[in-house]
Amino acid sequence: MFNQKAIIALSGGLDSCVTAAIASENYELALAHFNYGQRTEERELKAFNDIADFYNVKERLIVDFTHFPKIGGSSLTDYNIPVPEGNAQNLSIPNTYVPFRNANILSACVSWAEIIFAEKIFIGAVHEDSSGYPDCKPSFFNNFNALIKEGTKREISIVVETPVIGMSKAEIVKKGIELNAPMHLTWSCYQNSEKACGICDSCLLRLKGFQNAGYIDPIEYMIDIKI
Amino acid sequence: MFNQKAIIALSGGLDSCVTAAIASENYELALAHFNYGQRTEERELKAFNDIADFYNVKERLIVDFTHFPKIGGSSLTDYNIPVPEGNAQNLSIPNTYVPFRNANILSACVSWAEIIFAEKIFIGAVHEDSSGYPDCKPSFFNNFNALIKEGTKREISIVVETPVIGMSKAEIVKKGIELNAPMHLTWSCYQNSEKACGICDSCLLRLKGFQNAGYIDPIEYMIDIKI
Repeated sequence: MFNQKAIIALSGGLDSCVTAAIASENYELALAHFNYGQRTEERELKAFNDIADFYNVKERLIVDFTHFPKIGGSSLTDYNIPVPEGNAQNLSIPNTYVPFRNANILSACVSWAEIIFAEKIFIGAVHEDSSGYPDCKPSFFNNFNALIKEGTKREISIVVETPVIGMSKAEIVKKGIELNAPMHLTWSCYQNSEKACGICDSCLLRLKGFQNAGYIDPIEYMIDIKI
Repeated sequence: MFNQKAIIALSGGLDSCVTAAIASENYELALAHFNYGQRTEERELKAFNDIADFYNVKERLIVDFTHFPKIGGSSLTDYNIPVPEGNAQNLSIPNTYVPFRNANILSACVSWAEIIFAEKIFIGAVHEDSSGYPDCKPSFFNNFNALIKEGTKREISIVVETPVIGMSKAEIVKKGIELNAPMHLTWSCYQNSEKACGICDSCLLRLKGFQNAGYIDPIEYMIDIKI
């Protein structure tokens, strides 16, 4: 048992799973999952609970963000906008961008942290190998930490940690292997829930990460993977 | 018709109503309302829609924050904790405090602002005559504006405005009278939904504000008001 508690924003994807593995080295885990109307939410929630079970975590918070499906504007939440395939990282900000999503996620985590006395909030944001989302930059998280200092009770110190923000996907995979992270339980695909499509941006980034790390991705894909 | 659009975080209370009145002088309004499990949500939503009708606003967003009732910790969302009565402003941070609520509210507003191309977000936070909530300080909103700059698309400029933050409740009432704000449609009581209780912190602050401004509060109270 650790003395300090950390909340992990756990989507159920590769990056957040490895982030949880890193946090589990030094903190008691509390896990938060966010439903914002994404296409594969049901599958992601299963991944979340599978990973939570793996780490034997009792404190779990499922947050339904009802406003994201209402406001639309992203291919993840507006099913009339197609998810981009086959051109990972070609666009500056792809249509999978959900505006200011991480601020919404972190704000809810901070509210929870004040109640359960968690001192850290871990989020698996990736900047180096990311999709160019503005709310994944290190400077964004620095600003968020300044906001927490201003906007919470003074006796509580809450800090956001982004341990994989500077890693490539291959480095994240290697870190996951090193820490025995349950990567076989994760879900990354933006559009399928049975077997991963293997062709959306998120699948391509993930597959390339495993390939560059020299490991086989343990999850199943719809297509033969030849990269 | 104005060229610029502003989102108003409109609880349906006095402060947010007068804030909407101020914004309506220069902006086309889009109104957002937040349900975070507060006791009087149904009554507040009616006030929100009444005020929206008054200003003939078409763009309305109702956000259900499902996590606040789950995490509890505030007398507004955990009905086992009694709302304080009769001692307005006696405590440093009263139990009506909902942790980091304004960050949750503003984050959702920013997400919506990116989609509907709103350039301002108005929130009726009050610091001078407030209950000591840490997320109502001017420095909190300055930090939030820095966060928006980092975390949103560069081509969009979104700024949070807090026009009543330095006003006393009496000054807010006077401003409302001056701008013909529909204060008769607002709801402030923390615990009742039929007639205002007149004894919770929020009712006391409001009544004192009207008294100091020299006006009669147009809403009905359960008790004879003698302050």
